[in-house]
Amino acid sequence: MAHHVRTLVFGSPLPTTALGETRLGNIRALAVLSPGALASIAYANQEIFLGLVVAGAAGLAYSWEVALAITGLLVLLSASYMQTIAAYPSGGGSYTVARENLGELAGLVAAAGLLIDYILNAAVSLTAGVAALASAFPALWAHRVAIALLLLLIITVLNLRGMREVGTVMIVPVYLFLTTYLVMIAYGIFVALSQGPGSLETAVASTPAAPSVFIPVTIFLLLRTFSSGATALTGVEAISNAVPIFKPVAIRNAQKTMATMAALMAILFMGTILLTEYLAVVAGPNETILSALARRLFGTSPVYFLAQIATLLVLIVAANTSFAGFPRITSLMAEDGFLPRQLRIVGDRLVFSNGILVLALLVGMLIVLFEGDTHLLIPLFAVGAFLAYTLSQAGMVAHWWEERGSGWLTKAALNGLGALATAVALLIVGVSKFIHGAWIVVLLIPLLVLLFRHIRDHYAHVGRELSLAGETPQIGGMAPSRIIMPVAGVHRGVIQALNYANSISRDITAVFVELEPGSGAALVEKWQSYGLDRIARLDIVPSPYRSLIGPFLDEVDRLDAENSDDWPATVLIPEFVPAHAWQFLLHNQTALLLKWALLYRRHRYGKTRAVIDIPFHLEK
Amino acid sequence: MAHHVRTLVFGSPLPTTALGETRLGNIRALAVLSPGALASIAYANQEIFLGLVVAGAAGLAYSWEVALAITGLLVLLSASYMQTIAAYPSGGGSYTVARENLGELAGLVAAAGLLIDYILNAAVSLTAGVAALASAFPALWAHRVAIALLLLLIITVLNLRGMREVGTVMIVPVYLFLTTYLVMIAYGIFVALSQGPGSLETAVASTPAAPSVFIPVTIFLLLRTFSSGATALTGVEAISNAVPIFKPVAIRNAQKTMATMAALMAILFMGTILLTEYLAVVAGPNETILSALARRLFGTSPVYFLAQIATLLVLIVAANTSFAGFPRITSLMAEDGFLPRQLRIVGDRLVFSNGILVLALLVGMLIVLFEGDTHLLIPLFAVGAFLAYTLSQAGMVAHWWEERGSGWLTKAALNGLGALATAVALLIVGVSKFIHGAWIVVLLIPLLVLLFRHIRDHYAHVGRELSLAGETPQIGGMAPSRIIMPVAGVHRGVIQALNYANSISRDITAVFVELEPGSGAALVEKWQSYGLDRIARLDIVPSPYRSLIGPFLDEVDRLDAENSDDWPATVLIPEFVPAHAWQFLLHNQTALLLKWALLYRRHRYGKTRAVIDIPFHLEK
Repeated sequence: MAHHVRTLVFGSPLPTTALGETRLGNIRALAVLSPGALASIAYANQEIFLGLVVAGAAGLAYSWEVALAITGLLVLLSASYMQTIAAYPSGGGSYTVARENLGELAGLVAAAGLLIDYILNAAVSLTAGVAALASAFPALWAHRVAIALLLLLIITVLNLRGMREVGTVMIVPVYLFLTTYLVMIAYGIFVALSQGPGSLETAVASTPAAPSVFIPVTIFLLLRTFSSGATALTGVEAISNAVPIFKPVAIRNAQKTMATMAALMAILFMGTILLTEYLAVVAGPNETILSALARRLFGTSPVYFLAQIATLLVLIVAANTSFAGFPRITSLMAEDGFLPRQLRIVGDRLVFSNGILVLALLVGMLIVLFEGDTHLLIPLFAVGAFLAYTLSQAGMVAHWWEERGSGWLTKAALNGLGALATAVALLIVGVSKFIHGAWIVVLLIPLLVLLFRHIRDHYAHVGRELSLAGETPQIGGMAPSRIIMPVAGVHRGVIQALNYANSISRDITAVFVELEPGSGAALVEKWQSYGLDRIARLDIVPSPYRSLIGPFLDEVDRLDAENSDDWPATVLIPEFVPAHAWQFLLHNQTALLLKWALLYRRHRYGKTRAVIDIPFHLEK
Repeated sequence: MAHHVRTLVFGSPLPTTALGETRLGNIRALAVLSPGALASIAYANQEIFLGLVVAGAAGLAYSWEVALAITGLLVLLSASYMQTIAAYPSGGGSYTVARENLGELAGLVAAAGLLIDYILNAAVSLTAGVAALASAFPALWAHRVAIALLLLLIITVLNLRGMREVGTVMIVPVYLFLTTYLVMIAYGIFVALSQGPGSLETAVASTPAAPSVFIPVTIFLLLRTFSSGATALTGVEAISNAVPIFKPVAIRNAQKTMATMAALMAILFMGTILLTEYLAVVAGPNETILSALARRLFGTSPVYFLAQIATLLVLIVAANTSFAGFPRITSLMAEDGFLPRQLRIVGDRLVFSNGILVLALLVGMLIVLFEGDTHLLIPLFAVGAFLAYTLSQAGMVAHWWEERGSGWLTKAALNGLGALATAVALLIVGVSKFIHGAWIVVLLIPLLVLLFRHIRDHYAHVGRELSLAGETPQIGGMAPSRIIMPVAGVHRGVIQALNYANSISRDITAVFVELEPGSGAALVEKWQSYGLDRIARLDIVPSPYRSLIGPFLDEVDRLDAENSDDWPATVLIPEFVPAHAWQFLLHNQTALLLKWALLYRRHRYGKTRAVIDIPFHLEK
């Protein structure tokens, strides 16, 4: 039953031989790799609006300048990453580039930043997608958390199934989104030309989202808005991580796709921002600014709803990119010993199931803790991404310096400029958003780096402890073990266990812990009447406090101390196994507790104590 | 550390020899046994008010008639139970009386009813106590669930500590409550005499708790109100259950205490109801009727707050009586095999810890599910109690019939009248409250009875399967077992495990599941180079779907099939034990999963497979 449900939801297991690379054409690669970057205009636009509206019309008039600064950074970043593509044709993620060129610490810091940003990308994309949907259907606004969690569940299950067909499926929402928004911008330009500019003052006065008292436009306000809007740049590095999935010549195709993506992003971002400002569009409290723009242009027509659905879909696909990236990085790091080994395991369906589950859990927690509110999550976002960008590009500078090929100076200068720009952006984001939430990430990154190293040290230590290097293992000198066996009476389970004990040892002690005073004497009599005393001694141990495990373990220690063997006695545990799982509730779990206690109890001589489990299967 | 916290919260363990009966004087016995009955006026009054206020002043005018009917039932019930005290001086709970005189089924039905009512008594008392507190401090109204859960936690911890000193402590709230309310009633009579009657019409018109349209006073309305008010009678049987704790002559003392309790209850209940009606007191939506009465008499003076605190305290003590009764019944039933044996275990502090924990959990769930609202819980209450009363008194009739001592006919008639009256009350409660929640209990009781029997059958069956009756156990004919051992490589843990295996068997097979194609060949070479092939064969098993446990178990089955032994091979598992618990997260839990899989997998010949665990303790 459970197996059938499992197969239905997650699909049948795939053999290892099914693993293999499918290379993608540029159209399809763009659909797979760009949604993180393209969809980010949905929340970046919103953040720029929210950042400036507190200063009223005077503030909103700065929209296009802020957007232009971000677009400038985008162009610089894209050019810089195109060089990374050329230098790392096997995929140059920030973790790899920083680690190879700047050392382990830089690699780990970049990795910590990236992991945090993958988590936030999924959380922000999903909540922003729900906001787009709820803008069209206001009744859904109250259920944002539930809807976001439902979408998360669907994405998680799809990813656990394996996303081999996903390149094809992704094409639909990505190109639907591109088409809808490009059409919207074109039509918007037509409207703008025919109707002329709107009045921001009038618009702001009419919206309940604006504060009653405006704060003045300061440099700090503009920088903080820039920080929030710069979340548009997250996901830009995706193509440079994935050069090997392009058809040959992979480098050329990847660079072309990168340039296309940057151009599309610039058009979408600047286009929507300029139209919003020129037409003086403002949003109410339960609507996104992109929804308000679409409504201004199309009214509440089917085209408007199409735009909202397209936004939702592309944001879901954007959240999904985290489900590709996060498990890939965690598996790489697990391979290097910086994260638990289980993250390296390829599941039934040839995906890193554990990484997917960890990500889903963390994203779900974020959505619940931040009440499904994109705006609350944004200050945590971008810190990690800009940290990774800076380290990755600084790593590229070191790379060129090391290599000194033709024209290395120009290349180093471009990457250096990129590193400098993102470092400045990082500083701006970190400072201006610090008290709003960025401090969480600033605190988390060093803690994560410490954790990574701690885990690595543990594995290294285990390796040393287990290593046989330089030794010839000795086997065979040991005498058969003495056996100590807890008994609660005389019954078939005990007889079966005694039988087994007798087959491997000539020295067997049964131990009875006397919970009720007087019960021991009765057992001794029964033991003798069945002739069991010829097979095993019976020790009766008192238990004044009615506990079982403590007195038994003390008796085991006492018996060990009496013997001078090198090897501690083996404990043999007769255990019932009920026929049905629910029946477990009807039996004391003494055997289970005893096994745990023995496993975690170091023997006083530092030697290992073997534990033998003799199950007795009940039939009904 | 954990040990110290444990001792601080729950106290140090007590030896079995500390068990012993402390007999109580009547004053103290009344304090211990009566709170369940006395405190119930807090919610019974409230329910009568809520039941009648929907019919306006005309409805509330029936308050004293309803209360009188309930008081009549109380007198009859008390007289009936005084006979039970005489007949069962060792304690005649409904379970015992019904089982002995009417057979097992009746006993189980009574037990099911009692268990449900103990749970509801605790939930209702706690929520009613919180309502009394929140009537005085309205700001607490919003936090009723949290406060009720906090009180529950405190009671649970105190009970887990053991309540040996509790008789003394309980005297304070019970006599504080009695004094406060007796004074209040006396003062109320003075006020009533000096001020004359109030107008119910005026009062109802002024309260927001009354509906805008009144429904007419019907027989059904009165019967339903009677049902709700009859919850006042829960807890009346407590004294008859506990005859042995009285000082000699126990029967006389218990009967005297029973009569005193009934008299006090009648005074408190009728006194408050009559005063409320005469003074035309009504309550607002966030206040109890008792609070409104106290406020009417004392204003918002310290005396008023004292009355509310006294009500809260006595209700806490009333909830606590469930913590004495529930674990006692569950341990009796566990002794008879009708409930899991763990409920019989006497904990560290000489209390039935498991019963206390189960009760606390169920009460907590009820409080959360019913949102801490007494009024929603009431329809579930009383069904169980009246069922148990009816069966217990019918049992007494059968008892007298059997015994036929002097004057048996009169005694049988009195118990018969009691049984009839409670049966009629049961019918009224069951029908009039059916759709409001009584159906849950009506459904639950037969299900519980089925469960009890199912559990008893299970234990009986296990007893038969384990029994050695009529057999002479055979021990010693078995040859040493073959050993099969999963390995993941060659390291110290494996060497240690091989050493152990070699000491008890001459036939050892190591099994390597090849997760990555090609890794098997490398291991074979290493195995030979260390000379391990002289000790154990090495089988390489492919795993096309990268799973470990399935292919290993298949190989074990294959090896068993190859051998004609009577006894299946022993599986020996080398297992790491990390030095610190958190490090478990860093290792695959394969050994654990494998042990579980082996324990639950029946060997195909129906024989038991022994599992040996060889832990390798990591040092850091």
